[in-house]
Amino acid sequence: MNRLTEAQYQEISEARDAASSTRRPTCAPLEALMFTPIDVLDKGFVRVVDYMGDDAAIVQGARVSYGRGTRKTSTDRGLIRYLMRHRHTTPFELAELKLHVRAPIFVTRQWFRHRTASINEYSARYSVLEREFYVPDIDSIAAQSDSNRQGRGEKMSAEQAQEISRILKDDAAHCYDNYLLMLNETPDGQIIDETRTGLARELARINLPVGIYTQFYWKVNLWNLLRFLSLRADPHAQYEIRAYADAILRIVEQWVPHAHEAFSDYVLGASELSSQALALLRAALTPGEKLDPRNYGLAGRELRELLAIMPELSNRLIPE
Amino acid sequence: MNRLTEAQYQEISEARDAASSTRRPTCAPLEALMFTPIDVLDKGFVRVVDYMGDDAAIVQGARVSYGRGTRKTSTDRGLIRYLMRHRHTTPFELAELKLHVRAPIFVTRQWFRHRTASINEYSARYSVLEREFYVPDIDSIAAQSDSNRQGRGEKMSAEQAQEISRILKDDAAHCYDNYLLMLNETPDGQIIDETRTGLARELARINLPVGIYTQFYWKVNLWNLLRFLSLRADPHAQYEIRAYADAILRIVEQWVPHAHEAFSDYVLGASELSSQALALLRAALTPGEKLDPRNYGLAGRELRELLAIMPELSNRLIPE
Amino acid sequence: MNRLTEAQYQEISEARDAASSTRRPTCAPLEALMFTPIDVLDKGFVRVVDYMGDDAAIVQGARVSYGRGTRKTSTDRGLIRYLMRHRHTTPFELAELKLHVRAPIFVTRQWFRHRTASINEYSARYSVLEREFYVPDIDSIAAQSDSNRQGRGEKMSAEQAQEISRILKDDAAHCYDNYLLMLNETPDGQIIDETRTGLARELARINLPVGIYTQFYWKVNLWNLLRFLSLRADPHAQYEIRAYADAILRIVEQWVPHAHEAFSDYVLGASELSSQALALLRAALTPGEKLDPRNYGLAGRELRELLAIMPELSNRLIPE
Amino acid sequence: MNRLTEAQYQEISEARDAASSTRRPTCAPLEALMFTPIDVLDKGFVRVVDYMGDDAAIVQGARVSYGRGTRKTSTDRGLIRYLMRHRHTTPFELAELKLHVRAPIFVTRQWFRHRTASINEYSARYSVLEREFYVPDIDSIAAQSDSNRQGRGEKMSAEQAQEISRILKDDAAHCYDNYLLMLNETPDGQIIDETRTGLARELARINLPVGIYTQFYWKVNLWNLLRFLSLRADPHAQYEIRAYADAILRIVEQWVPHAHEAFSDYVLGASELSSQALALLRAALTPGEKLDPRNYGLAGRELRELLAIMPELSNRLIPE
Repeated sequence: MNRLTEAQYQEISEARDAASSTRRPTCAPLEALMFTPIDVLDKGFVRVVDYMGDDAAIVQGARVSYGRGTRKTSTDRGLIRYLMRHRHTTPFELAELKLHVRAPIFVTRQWFRHRTASINEYSARYSVLEREFYVPDIDSIAAQSDSNRQGRGEKMSAEQAQEISRILKDDAAHCYDNYLLMLNETPDGQIIDETRTGLARELARINLPVGIYTQFYWKVNLWNLLRFLSLRADPHAQYEIRAYADAILRIVEQWVPHAHEAFSDYVLGASELSSQALALLRAALTPGEKLDPRNYGLAGRELRELLAIMPELSNRLIPE
Repeated sequence: MNRLTEAQYQEISEARDAASSTRRPTCAPLEALMFTPIDVLDKGFVRVVDYMGDDAAIVQGARVSYGRGTRKTSTDRGLIRYLMRHRHTTPFELAELKLHVRAPIFVTRQWFRHRTASINEYSARYSVLEREFYVPDIDSIAAQSDSNRQGRGEKMSAEQAQEISRILKDDAAHCYDNYLLMLNETPDGQIIDETRTGLARELARINLPVGIYTQFYWKVNLWNLLRFLSLRADPHAQYEIRAYADAILRIVEQWVPHAHEAFSDYVLGASELSSQALALLRAALTPGEKLDPRNYGLAGRELRELLAIMPELSNRLIPE
Repeated sequence: MNRLTEAQYQEISEARDAASSTRRPTCAPLEALMFTPIDVLDKGFVRVVDYMGDDAAIVQGARVSYGRGTRKTSTDRGLIRYLMRHRHTTPFELAELKLHVRAPIFVTRQWFRHRTASINEYSARYSVLEREFYVPDIDSIAAQSDSNRQGRGEKMSAEQAQEISRILKDDAAHCYDNYLLMLNETPDGQIIDETRTGLARELARINLPVGIYTQFYWKVNLWNLLRFLSLRADPHAQYEIRAYADAILRIVEQWVPHAHEAFSDYVLGASELSSQALALLRAALTPGEKLDPRNYGLAGRELRELLAIMPELSNRLIPE
Repeated sequence: MNRLTEAQYQEISEARDAASSTRRPTCAPLEALMFTPIDVLDKGFVRVVDYMGDDAAIVQGARVSYGRGTRKTSTDRGLIRYLMRHRHTTPFELAELKLHVRAPIFVTRQWFRHRTASINEYSARYSVLEREFYVPDIDSIAAQSDSNRQGRGEKMSAEQAQEISRILKDDAAHCYDNYLLMLNETPDGQIIDETRTGLARELARINLPVGIYTQFYWKVNLWNLLRFLSLRADPHAQYEIRAYADAILRIVEQWVPHAHEAFSDYVLGASELSSQALALLRAALTPGEKLDPRNYGLAGRELRELLAIMPELSNRLIPE
């Protein structure tokens, strides 16, 4: 780990060493990983800074109960699964997570579209940004997808990928050098040329590419966090934000294992079947002639999406 | 304290006795009052069930810092006052409070208009409500205000207050008896008459007055909590919800003393002066003739509101 | 229609008669039903007071386009279906509906749990409530369900239903009479007894049952409206709020027919199948031995819910 | 006006020409400016795309009334001023505005921190961004402020400003050229080099500076719009977002003149005075000795902020 300065590691280490006694619900596996940065992408991280509640607190809230309850774990698991299956969202809102994140600006632009969360971001009006830019691995540099206008297709040739990587690095370095030149200031606050005036930070930063890293505190309740994960840990999400979502998903697994399991079964691994798809499936379960999906209003992209989920269905259909 | 059953006190007592070690920010004065109900009105309460953050966490979030920081308390206080004065709301959103509340339905109807919070309420579709109704103290039974159509005026005669108290108690008892009769069930689940069918709970409850007590878990971030308090700890708020706001204000004082102090100075004790009021005040600070407030666009109710805040101003004004 | 006073009908009639010219998207079928109350329950109503946008505006927003576009209706329909299927929520947020509603307080308590909407409710602190209480039809008075603790079971005997209807009416009348007595005021503002003082309205109303009607303006964007409908037009919702949801669903059908159709196919008529259910279905589509659902982690309530959606599946399962 | 293409002007012109009849509240001055872009900064704009409600609709909602009402304009104005003065926010939520905006990415990053609004932004994953970058006027290129770490200080020398302008233009052009090179595509979709593969759009865009223009639809209710304006039309806001806020403020003035006037008097032109400031002012209004502000807990930055609002006060204070 060399993503942070010595002083930053020192601060983190002190926070980790301080322990207090509390009457609040406490989650041992989450305590173990508190404050330590989890690496994401080439220079980013996610750190747990605070949390509220656990699986039992979800149950306690759903029951509006007086204490932590004396029920068995198995009962708690069953109730949490029921709540998730039927999208009873409010008990999940009773748990809360606070993270410290370093991510590129283009990732935060997708991230902050999730409106129900509290954000404090490092201010480029107030402070000088660090010289840290995202440059994708050669392996994740891919061509524009033909089939999905929002996504990536095949990997590029090694040669072209190298060239792209070089362009991204060079342009970022060039823009950042001019950023400092316009500020007339080094990142640690030294004036570069005493005979010149420094441009206002809020203006100089407009020269910086959206690949530059920024930092923020993010506090969100469990339900809205799961909603974020259902969209951002999804294959349709851009690879870079998915890398953060995957890291956070592993934190959630440590924190609220029952809620995580229910989320995996009923949301991440589940599929919403339309009324048309349900009708076709019901017919397909009854032995008989092959079926024409167009009779059920299914064709084209929507049919392909269904067959991707349920390839066995194609044996019961007449060829398109 | 006899507002709860023995079993409920037992549950609370067990939760209080359990202590764990944590790396999270901990607030000793808040730990001391955790789980114990604070009495509000005749049969209501507020209990702290969980919390996240403290004054230092507000500062840490505002600085997007790596650790708890090594700054002095006096610096933290100054920053918190600055943030409050300039309504930089997001750092205050980084602290969170979870309460368990028992309050009359008409109070919750005002309470839940505050939309940015998480609520789990005891369900009268699912469970039988307790026989607990709010009956105001004789001292808080007051006449309709003449000047303020939303508020109370003079206290009523002892005799009339006694009569009102009696009506409220009798009607509540009568409606609740019929509630059980329709349910064909006692509060502890015994069937009353084996030859009859019990009405669905979701229907039987429509007979109950809005003075009946209900219970809920309420989780809210500090900024939205302060917003709630600024409206509900205000003299214009109905006395009954103000009683809850006052109790919560004392909890906030224990929890985040710097934020509480700044809130008292810059919000609760502050006044917003209009551009007209500012112009009049500036003129009044310059010695000279008495001023006509109508020349500044001030008259009637708005002028009276200003003089209530600043009675000394009237010496500088010509009589209305 | 005799739910409103003459003066109210007069006001509505004037609003209906006023027509202006506008450059905004306009929806003829919605214009036709604007302002006129649609009856709901025994004394409630829903009225369209204003709207913004239509199906084409959803498409326009999704494309961030400059004009209304020249695309064909069939293309718009396809895009709207795609947006709904993949839960791209923001274009649906670009349409907005404003309603005036009269509903019983216990219905509004469920309604207002939907937090992302704007509400202005008639104030019982400020004004005297009308003498209007919900009394269920004899036909919708039902027993508590055995299987679903939140719902209704079989209908009650006519005799018992009559008795319940009578209790509800009598208690409401009795409480309302005492409400006026305590106010010392008739609904139209006449003092009842000059020798007495009227109790503050905010206190007198605590005697009123949650079955009393209140009124509010409700403004919500289309996405949050559809979310409301998906929960409240559902068979698990209480009958009384479902009656309002059904009325609003018919308004939506007039207003944005493509969005309504997509919502019916992909939300209302759709089912979310868990990863376990999907695995079982895939196996069931392949001819072979009967399957044991427990091998797929499916049993009890969850299995019954699946078979309710897809009864044909039971032929492929070994008996429980 | 040459900020748009011919085709875009064509689309706008068609939308302007289409008029329909409606029963909804209509605002003639707003109709007049609908769809036409209002220039902001060097290449940005704001366009009214739709609206709901007017001053009368705010009043109607506050009264939960049946029709548009027959009250006089003067009464409406008085009620709106009362609602604004006492921050009764919900009636203002009943009006809604939809804008189409072109703004630089760094401006949208501040804009989208306002969470209670609906946004549809042009997607750089899906489409190729236009070659439009913000370059400040020579006159608005200013040095970093010494006193305000978030703001601008003195203007720079013409020579240095010219150099900065040149750097910003050159770097933007250079980065954009490489963006197209990596895409292997011209803005109108022509392949540049048939022997190469185009990089995925979602990756190529990370080379673009935050000064590039993007576009979005923004829909917000009047209360949240006023909240946005109170923060972004403020002198502490960055000049570039203030330019948008000022343009929108003029739209609001056309749309809801009473609400705009009340907002100017009670929010924009008003000041919140702390309990300390109020105590000092009350003493200052009473003739007598000069006062020591430290006795009232006022000193340093906070005192300077007070004297900036009320310079006449300094005559009543002992020198610092």
